[in-house]
Amino acid sequence: MTTVIELEEIKSLLKNVDVVTAMSEGFVQYSNGNTVVPPVGELLFDNPPGDVHIKYGYIKKDDFYVIKIASGFYENKNLGLPSSQGIMLLFNQKTGQTVAVLLDEGYLTDVRTAAAGAVAAKYFAPKNIEGIGILGTGIQAKMQLQYLQKTKPCKSVWVWGRTAENVLRFKEEMGDKFDIHIAESALDVTQNCNLIVTTTPSELALITADNIRPGTHITAVGSDTSEKQELDGSVLKKANIVVADSIPQSKSRGEIYQAVSNGFITEDKIMELGNAIQNSDLQRTSEEQITVVDLTGVAVQDIMITTAVYEKYKEENA
Amino acid sequence: MTTVIELEEIKSLLKNVDVVTAMSEGFVQYSNGNTVVPPVGELLFDNPPGDVHIKYGYIKKDDFYVIKIASGFYENKNLGLPSSQGIMLLFNQKTGQTVAVLLDEGYLTDVRTAAAGAVAAKYFAPKNIEGIGILGTGIQAKMQLQYLQKTKPCKSVWVWGRTAENVLRFKEEMGDKFDIHIAESALDVTQNCNLIVTTTPSELALITADNIRPGTHITAVGSDTSEKQELDGSVLKKANIVVADSIPQSKSRGEIYQAVSNGFITEDKIMELGNAIQNSDLQRTSEEQITVVDLTGVAVQDIMITTAVYEKYKEENA
Repeated sequence: MTTVIELEEIKSLLKNVDVVTAMSEGFVQYSNGNTVVPPVGELLFDNPPGDVHIKYGYIKKDDFYVIKIASGFYENKNLGLPSSQGIMLLFNQKTGQTVAVLLDEGYLTDVRTAAAGAVAAKYFAPKNIEGIGILGTGIQAKMQLQYLQKTKPCKSVWVWGRTAENVLRFKEEMGDKFDIHIAESALDVTQNCNLIVTTTPSELALITADNIRPGTHITAVGSDTSEKQELDGSVLKKANIVVADSIPQSKSRGEIYQAVSNGFITEDKIMELGNAIQNSDLQRTSEEQITVVDLTGVAVQDIMITTAVYEKYKEENA
Repeated sequence: MTTVIELEEIKSLLKNVDVVTAMSEGFVQYSNGNTVVPPVGELLFDNPPGDVHIKYGYIKKDDFYVIKIASGFYENKNLGLPSSQGIMLLFNQKTGQTVAVLLDEGYLTDVRTAAAGAVAAKYFAPKNIEGIGILGTGIQAKMQLQYLQKTKPCKSVWVWGRTAENVLRFKEEMGDKFDIHIAESALDVTQNCNLIVTTTPSELALITADNIRPGTHITAVGSDTSEKQELDGSVLKKANIVVADSIPQSKSRGEIYQAVSNGFITEDKIMELGNAIQNSDLQRTSEEQITVVDLTGVAVQDIMITTAVYEKYKEENA
């Protein structure tokens, strides 16, 4: 009997799921070589333009395997629909039976990405957060801010966006819970904040090494292709610690790919998040260090969150 | 709003779906280059052994794209479960929204494969069927026999299987509607039948050219990998017409792959089913010709059957 879970129920279940711990465990499993994750499948459309990615895999000796279908159809906004769509599928690893269908419409991808930001901050952000800086004003900008409260709570926020309209909307939506400052520039963010998350689809660097305060931690979320870039290579060069969620993926996409291919750093500088989580020597060791965690998104995150939501569903419907 | 359709409802809807015509149209779209079908995704398991295949694609300018997950866990029989499991997913080609989830447990794959056999027989089997020969006794053996009635009806059947027990069970289950003869050997089948379907997972040829009567049509269904083979290369050499459901796939799997790589025939002998459907000059033109259609399974079949079942659901629930 296959369980079908609708978006509203997924949101309700998530309230009682510790997604940050689940992500942390997932990164450890990944770095320890306990996951099987084949290459991503892709389906492209021209008119209207759209792309579909099929990510799938499993943790060895686990109960399930997971398939995620996630798409981006960027003209959806003209129809009043979110550009991201998707579904998560959970199967029995021993029989192939379809265990659960999570009709999440892309929501779980947003959550697992935000929760990874909270994991990065937990191990690399400084003890005292003076201000959280957010580049970007979209769904991920808001969710990163919310999830950071679970590991590095701070109400003082500087936000920068590409249009005044977007920034004002961000302030309106988040202003109840946070003290939101509208930043005039990325420099305004780096001067006031020592925990920064970048969430834009920019292809031009927004932050350079000169602007960063000692002790700053940056989690780079926006760049997940070979073209996108939010941090100048000088930032990764200046950083004391540079971490990838996936070293293999960092060879072809994200900030690390940009910094290495432009000669700012070499690959031996890069650590993998799941290794650092297990070894406090690899984490931040002083309040003065500059740290960068580059998140490009790993299928183990999808495996972990889908499994966690389903386990919670079973528990609540036992 | 995503529609979820359970197996029992799928079976009920299929009674009013013309799957044979849908397959025929699908093969035409495929051969005319109107489909987009990326390489199949694969996920493998060791303990217990299992394989998962993810097939996906779309027909250009259609409303939907389709993803099929199909698995084989061969120790399932010890648990009283079918080894084949699976699910079919239908998405909006213009927005990416999840339109329908068909919890078919692999059943639609069985149906679309059987319906392709009926298409092959329609265009290539002789006018007068004296006996239908079936090699194999499993689900596909039974379904091929049933679907052949839609295009080349014949009640006189010779069945051959690897064990007496399997053959007797086949006779018991199908004996009500058909006059079932138990064949002592594959030779017994070829001597009595001029429409033969092979459905076994054999890796050794079961039929050689010497044994085939003039005018015989063979649809080869069992061999869909580079190892499996039911027809000796001499059969394809002797045949007047050799047809592949997919010429690209026939270069790496199935009977045609075997016959070409063992030097019995050259690639220029092969026609594609979707081309032959559109051109009667490429179909059987005399009662004496020997014809072979090699079916390895094409994603367009999954696209067609999933769409057809969903369209019927919409019609009946309008």
